[in-house]
Amino acid sequence: MAQKQAITAIYPGTFDPITNGHLDIVKRAAPLFDKVIITLALNIDKDPLFSIEERLEMLRRSTEDIEGVEVAQFSGLVVNFASSRGAKVIIRGLRAVSDFEYEFQIALMNRKQRPEIDTVYLMPDARYTYLSSSIIKEVARHGGEVRQLVPSFVMEMLMKKFPKSISE
Amino acid sequence: MAQKQAITAIYPGTFDPITNGHLDIVKRAAPLFDKVIITLALNIDKDPLFSIEERLEMLRRSTEDIEGVEVAQFSGLVVNFASSRGAKVIIRGLRAVSDFEYEFQIALMNRKQRPEIDTVYLMPDARYTYLSSSIIKEVARHGGEVRQLVPSFVMEMLMKKFPKSISE
Amino acid sequence: MAQKQAITAIYPGTFDPITNGHLDIVKRAAPLFDKVIITLALNIDKDPLFSIEERLEMLRRSTEDIEGVEVAQFSGLVVNFASSRGAKVIIRGLRAVSDFEYEFQIALMNRKQRPEIDTVYLMPDARYTYLSSSIIKEVARHGGEVRQLVPSFVMEMLMKKFPKSISE
Amino acid sequence: MAQKQAITAIYPGTFDPITNGHLDIVKRAAPLFDKVIITLALNIDKDPLFSIEERLEMLRRSTEDIEGVEVAQFSGLVVNFASSRGAKVIIRGLRAVSDFEYEFQIALMNRKQRPEIDTVYLMPDARYTYLSSSIIKEVARHGGEVRQLVPSFVMEMLMKKFPKSISE
Amino acid sequence: MAQKQAITAIYPGTFDPITNGHLDIVKRAAPLFDKVIITLALNIDKDPLFSIEERLEMLRRSTEDIEGVEVAQFSGLVVNFASSRGAKVIIRGLRAVSDFEYEFQIALMNRKQRPEIDTVYLMPDARYTYLSSSIIKEVARHGGEVRQLVPSFVMEMLMKKFPKSISE
Amino acid sequence: MAQKQAITAIYPGTFDPITNGHLDIVKRAAPLFDKVIITLALNIDKDPLFSIEERLEMLRRSTEDIEGVEVAQFSGLVVNFASSRGAKVIIRGLRAVSDFEYEFQIALMNRKQRPEIDTVYLMPDARYTYLSSSIIKEVARHGGEVRQLVPSFVMEMLMKKFPKSISE
Repeated sequence: MAQKQAITAIYPGTFDPITNGHLDIVKRAAPLFDKVIITLALNIDKDPLFSIEERLEMLRRSTEDIEGVEVAQFSGLVVNFASSRGAKVIIRGLRAVSDFEYEFQIALMNRKQRPEIDTVYLMPDARYTYLSSSIIKEVARHGGEVRQLVPSFVMEMLMKKFPKSISE
Repeated sequence: MAQKQAITAIYPGTFDPITNGHLDIVKRAAPLFDKVIITLALNIDKDPLFSIEERLEMLRRSTEDIEGVEVAQFSGLVVNFASSRGAKVIIRGLRAVSDFEYEFQIALMNRKQRPEIDTVYLMPDARYTYLSSSIIKEVARHGGEVRQLVPSFVMEMLMKKFPKSISE
Repeated sequence: MAQKQAITAIYPGTFDPITNGHLDIVKRAAPLFDKVIITLALNIDKDPLFSIEERLEMLRRSTEDIEGVEVAQFSGLVVNFASSRGAKVIIRGLRAVSDFEYEFQIALMNRKQRPEIDTVYLMPDARYTYLSSSIIKEVARHGGEVRQLVPSFVMEMLMKKFPKSISE
Repeated sequence: MAQKQAITAIYPGTFDPITNGHLDIVKRAAPLFDKVIITLALNIDKDPLFSIEERLEMLRRSTEDIEGVEVAQFSGLVVNFASSRGAKVIIRGLRAVSDFEYEFQIALMNRKQRPEIDTVYLMPDARYTYLSSSIIKEVARHGGEVRQLVPSFVMEMLMKKFPKSISE
Repeated sequence: MAQKQAITAIYPGTFDPITNGHLDIVKRAAPLFDKVIITLALNIDKDPLFSIEERLEMLRRSTEDIEGVEVAQFSGLVVNFASSRGAKVIIRGLRAVSDFEYEFQIALMNRKQRPEIDTVYLMPDARYTYLSSSIIKEVARHGGEVRQLVPSFVMEMLMKKFPKSISE
Repeated sequence: MAQKQAITAIYPGTFDPITNGHLDIVKRAAPLFDKVIITLALNIDKDPLFSIEERLEMLRRSTEDIEGVEVAQFSGLVVNFASSRGAKVIIRGLRAVSDFEYEFQIALMNRKQRPEIDTVYLMPDARYTYLSSSIIKEVARHGGEVRQLVPSFVMEMLMKKFPKSISE
């Protein structure tokens, strides 16, 4: 059969920080598409723990060994960024029912903006079903254990942000 | 058969801004009740995009052609406002599972306050199932397309709030 | 204000048997509409515990003191029955998230058939949130207690169907 | 960039009958993968309305104009069929919360069987969110309207199965 | 502090067959209560794959090394069985949202029967979140892999029920 | 049978304020465990209505007649506090689907920290299914009725915080 035109996919997020759940999605997406751009969404309203530079660095280090993956950043609407990069696909991880409805809302609005770009959902490994960046930060803040849930250098960066908590 | 006493219904919301999903509910409710009061809930804790005056104006312009609809505002508990207007019904739109539980919480508390007032739920057109004021604002902020999702004069008001975004 | 044309509402179900949750919905609906027709849906595929005659009798006895309520039966699509009776409204009780999606599916299909007829949802009293005809039958079958969950004459009819169970 | 190896995707289902919701998913999947095999799952336990031959015919006619789509059938585990065809991807449509959990159960079991094959979820158009083969059959059985919800030749086949219902 | 009276808990189910998810719940419950009775619910309406004797044997073999666990069977209402054994607690595993509402319905009815007996929910290991007896049987029927999801002797019993499937 | 070692359970929360729903859970938990420590979680990020001292006082007064209950406070991770008190169990109330997924996320993270401590879920009385501290505060703020939903002295404390609202 004749091969399709090369397909680029965007995997957007705030990645504050990247978790092994995010990485699991990237590893599942990489073999399916010709290029996967893991993309830091710059949302000026939020108050992130890690700076843009730190997060970009995390994304690069975490994905440097995965073929076909590159790192980028954008502000504005993800579909406009996707369009500017010629991407046809937005990748999202689906973990839980509460994700589900929010994702539908976003996807329908994205379709309205750019019908030629579609969203595909991937399911992370069951170990990561209920994992989120927020809970990672909450646990790390109190000196808890996040090994196996984030890459080891992210764990070190978390430990620097939260040195020996008085709650321990 | 003998006709019932005239029935007034309240449709409360923050309407920041009103969407075509809200209007769809108003149009479904209007033929069922003798009067429908679309009511701006003044919640001092929130930080709305549109002023009270702007939102009341939106409500009036959007509903001026729908028979039996009037516009009002209230602060405090919606059941108290309903009672002061002799309304027996509170109307709510149900879009998604996540609405559902929140709505139940509110409705049960309202019943506790005023058992003689009940809540009825209407379902918007499928096109509006995942539409919300928040996502409209988010998209408009970045110069995205909200045509067909809000009345045209609301679209213009959004464009004035968010002139040509640098993200475009 | 000028009153609306009289509005008839249909409350369809299999009522095998009617529960206090169903009755709670009827009592909430009766003051809102000029007529409420509680309607037995004849579904030839199911294997009901109570005969059509028994269920119609239950509906009549349960609702004889509620003004503006009548009892009927239909086969086929509920919207066609509603249309034949000049009804503008189908009433449904919403108890739980799992109801919610099924109800949406039904309501959207009904709208497709007869756009002039709409569905309104009412919420039963919190005591009846997780009550269903199926669980009533399951409990009664094993000699359990269903007092306060069904009308007293329904309880007697259940006891005749399930005389002294060997499991007790 | 170097192109990936050609990727084949399986879209399994019972398709009794195929709906416009299924077709919407096929049309979204076709541009993303090199080949999409829409595959009739032969489940001996079910009692389908349409025969295997009728359903295969429906699949062929519905998809004959979509490039890169072929039709097949299988019994047993879908991952084994996928493997035998060299497919890396199973496609599923996600419509509602209730789908979601069932799909997760299936996907996790499939991964256990063949970790090299992954499931991707696509979201149908909002018009088809609450559409299912079961409700199509239920409505057609009672002479209701399913135009715009199934391909026209499927509508004709439904009308032959359910000639002029007495309920009309 | 003075110790409580010894507390007995019932863990009811159809266990057709027992899975590692069920066993995970038993192992979590055993240290919390003085006695845990894993109890086969005899439901004459169902058509089980394994006979009562086979299932009781499975329960015994699976739990023989867990201290404080015994195996029993009952028909009728679980609260009546619990009462006859002096149990104060019914244990249930909670895996998914869809379980949740069904469990609430059951628990509220059980409370109505015997308010002195309460239900406690335990959460299985994340690996078993989407595991069920039904999917185990479905996969085993087609020659799929269920290792690590059921005890090894259950796997052998499944293989005897489903010798070399033609679908493989 | 030989009795188990005495078992201590923690019931953590922000209790701002304690509701009758919380108390219902404490009363259900007390007979099941040798000691129940109702524990105020000190979360410096939140902006509570009641001070730590007020909330501890509420907890003490509400539970002084329930045998085996004591009151404590902690900051940091609840599992670390539980461990420091020799507790094997964390108690949580489950009211609604939206609770469910959040609770799973928390419970899985807690297990990762201290696998020897497990979470058990109890279901409050149906009257309290949709009750929360937030809605109590919202209603009291506007002069609404919260009798039967909080202990009487909590109602008085709420009335002091919100003297005669202008919205009434």
